[in-house]
Amino acid sequence: MDTLQSLAITPPPAVLAADANDPLADFRSRFSLPDGVIYLDGDSLGALPVATPARLARAAEQEWGEGLITSWNVHDWIGAPRRVGDKIARLVGAAAGEVLVADSTSVNLFKLLAAALHHQAGRRVILSEPGNFPTDLYIAQGLSGIAPNVRLTTVPADEIVAAINDDTAVVMLTHVHYKTGRRLDMAAITAAAHAKGALVLWDLSHSVGAVEIDLNRCDADLAVGCGYKYLNGGPGAPAFLFVAERLQGELTSPLSGWMGHAAPFAFDDAYRPAPGIDRFACGTPPMLSLLALEQGVDLMLEADPALIAAKASALSELFIEAALARGAELGLSLASPGPFADRGSHVSFTFHEAYALCRALIDRGVIGDFRAPDVVRFGFTPLYTRFVDVWAAGEVLADVLIQKAWDRPDYRQKARVT
Amino acid sequence: MDTLQSLAITPPPAVLAADANDPLADFRSRFSLPDGVIYLDGDSLGALPVATPARLARAAEQEWGEGLITSWNVHDWIGAPRRVGDKIARLVGAAAGEVLVADSTSVNLFKLLAAALHHQAGRRVILSEPGNFPTDLYIAQGLSGIAPNVRLTTVPADEIVAAINDDTAVVMLTHVHYKTGRRLDMAAITAAAHAKGALVLWDLSHSVGAVEIDLNRCDADLAVGCGYKYLNGGPGAPAFLFVAERLQGELTSPLSGWMGHAAPFAFDDAYRPAPGIDRFACGTPPMLSLLALEQGVDLMLEADPALIAAKASALSELFIEAALARGAELGLSLASPGPFADRGSHVSFTFHEAYALCRALIDRGVIGDFRAPDVVRFGFTPLYTRFVDVWAAGEVLADVLIQKAWDRPDYRQKARVT
Repeated sequence: MDTLQSLAITPPPAVLAADANDPLADFRSRFSLPDGVIYLDGDSLGALPVATPARLARAAEQEWGEGLITSWNVHDWIGAPRRVGDKIARLVGAAAGEVLVADSTSVNLFKLLAAALHHQAGRRVILSEPGNFPTDLYIAQGLSGIAPNVRLTTVPADEIVAAINDDTAVVMLTHVHYKTGRRLDMAAITAAAHAKGALVLWDLSHSVGAVEIDLNRCDADLAVGCGYKYLNGGPGAPAFLFVAERLQGELTSPLSGWMGHAAPFAFDDAYRPAPGIDRFACGTPPMLSLLALEQGVDLMLEADPALIAAKASALSELFIEAALARGAELGLSLASPGPFADRGSHVSFTFHEAYALCRALIDRGVIGDFRAPDVVRFGFTPLYTRFVDVWAAGEVLADVLIQKAWDRPDYRQKARVT
Repeated sequence: MDTLQSLAITPPPAVLAADANDPLADFRSRFSLPDGVIYLDGDSLGALPVATPARLARAAEQEWGEGLITSWNVHDWIGAPRRVGDKIARLVGAAAGEVLVADSTSVNLFKLLAAALHHQAGRRVILSEPGNFPTDLYIAQGLSGIAPNVRLTTVPADEIVAAINDDTAVVMLTHVHYKTGRRLDMAAITAAAHAKGALVLWDLSHSVGAVEIDLNRCDADLAVGCGYKYLNGGPGAPAFLFVAERLQGELTSPLSGWMGHAAPFAFDDAYRPAPGIDRFACGTPPMLSLLALEQGVDLMLEADPALIAAKASALSELFIEAALARGAELGLSLASPGPFADRGSHVSFTFHEAYALCRALIDRGVIGDFRAPDVVRFGFTPLYTRFVDVWAAGEVLADVLIQKAWDRPDYRQKARVT
């Protein structure tokens, strides 16, 4: 049964008008979405573009099956990390040759942190905020376990700028916080770090494809980001990394695999980094996943980033209003900044039984996300979320709260969740 | 035109009989192979299993498209690195829980080398052979650039055992050499290393799926391997790593991403390694590529490893004999050990115009591989290479050599090759 049809009331005219006037409305048909579900978790795993299965079939049957080894050249698999990187560059305000698709966000964090530490001789601190996305902190901890004297220091986001000092090698922050959705001021923090001689590494995982990003206008140094959220690249899609052109010659990756060598097929014994961004490649990239990512990126490139941001703002504001109108007195508290300028395209609420609430919503066809210990999170993806979906999700949320539908033992029993 | 049909002569009865009596013959129909090609490069990129495109379609359309985020649990994506690792364990003589699918071979080398160095406090040398597969040496060099006092020392393979001393932390060797095909004695070298207190890390990229491997009977410590060669996992398929159960509690990865955390979804700020092999996971795995790999591994598991090794031996010996019979006096020299016990399932020859020879063979439908500077390499994949293919390739090779068909300017002009 369709979630919308299960609601006894019809959407208000303003909601219907918002969809009717949405300049991005046609993009929804480019995605394959299941019936009966309002999917508000595209900030965790983006939806399937309609074109992707055919692209995968071609990659497997023709490129791999027919072309075999020759496809590395004939179908330019070898160029895919740069080609897709150049496409992502256009989404984040970078130039061609500044972005590479490679590995996972975690692995790319390691490469860039290590490179930055090596570059910033004498400075030994990676500065971040507590509660940053865990893998960012974990990778910094892992690096500090093998690189001499490196240490991770965390201070709350609002104290970051004041905490940057002569010992700060690199400030590592997530542009849009995975849990609260809070968006940091990339330009201001980058400028403050540069004034103290520190580099900044931005994790764009929760912002790319959702909010406008202009790395070069912000004079950004380094960035990483995820391919499987708003870029709709598929589960575990390869990640990307950005290194400003001015820094590329000075930084090298400790993950110096053969794909980052200046002449990978010369099979020399000695590593010699490739010029430019290619030096941050490591091993052979997972081509099927990478070509699926390209499909998602191509689709994203068809949309105007300003329209995406505007719709992200409108969708999320509609939901905040709807959720708090009836949820505030039932225990729901907004954990995200209100104004869109201060956050990304997902919003979070604290609730004393957040896990149970999340389960109850899923059973009613509204897929959000639980984030331990007490947060329920909803992501709004401008390319395929409609205003009517957001409105309906608000109705379901209110109903679940009012009826205490979350208060079931099986909902409250915590299982492994992603 | 079919390469076989282009030959004016018919195969000798012994060759036809070998195929007729091949207990693995039926496996060929499980692969999708292009017409008109004799593919002797499965040691670089394995062929497409017939079942893989349907598996990819299901993963994309049903699991990703319909199931969306729930598929991490409902379709056990989250368990895939361990599940496929357990399957690969059966191919390499390891126990369940000793193998994990993750990242690339290069990244896994970094994890295990770093973990071994940390474990072997006081010992600072990674010992390997010159001419090892480049990424192995490069990664060791990359690690030595950030971990204090670590250095890579290389000595020829025959001098490795004598070179192991109190400063040797880990011996890093490729089981079957990527270029020469030489196979090292895993049991003997491992025992010699242990006698001197060193660990051994085996790169199985060119042996898994081609020769019999028994890691635990050899008392092996650590290993990595490739998914896209004899395992037929697809271009850039995820790699695997092995850590002997007895060492798992003592080793930790510096690439401490969230997927290796004891409780990834607790979102703690402090890294705490998962018990067991899971701690060597890093970021989110590329699921589409990983599920394609699983299909290749499943197929490999249907075949008896002893039969695979026996056929690898027979195919490669047939080719060596055919190639040298007429090629020896035309400049072709065997660069691989003759007896199968001393090598893998690929054989290499030196030739003064190896690149041109490789191009000429490809134009005649025989796909081998050039390896700089002067090697042409042929891989024999027991699941889909027939004896008649090997015989025909030998005929084409002889013809190309006799007619000097390689002596064309466009063949001799070196381009980028994979």
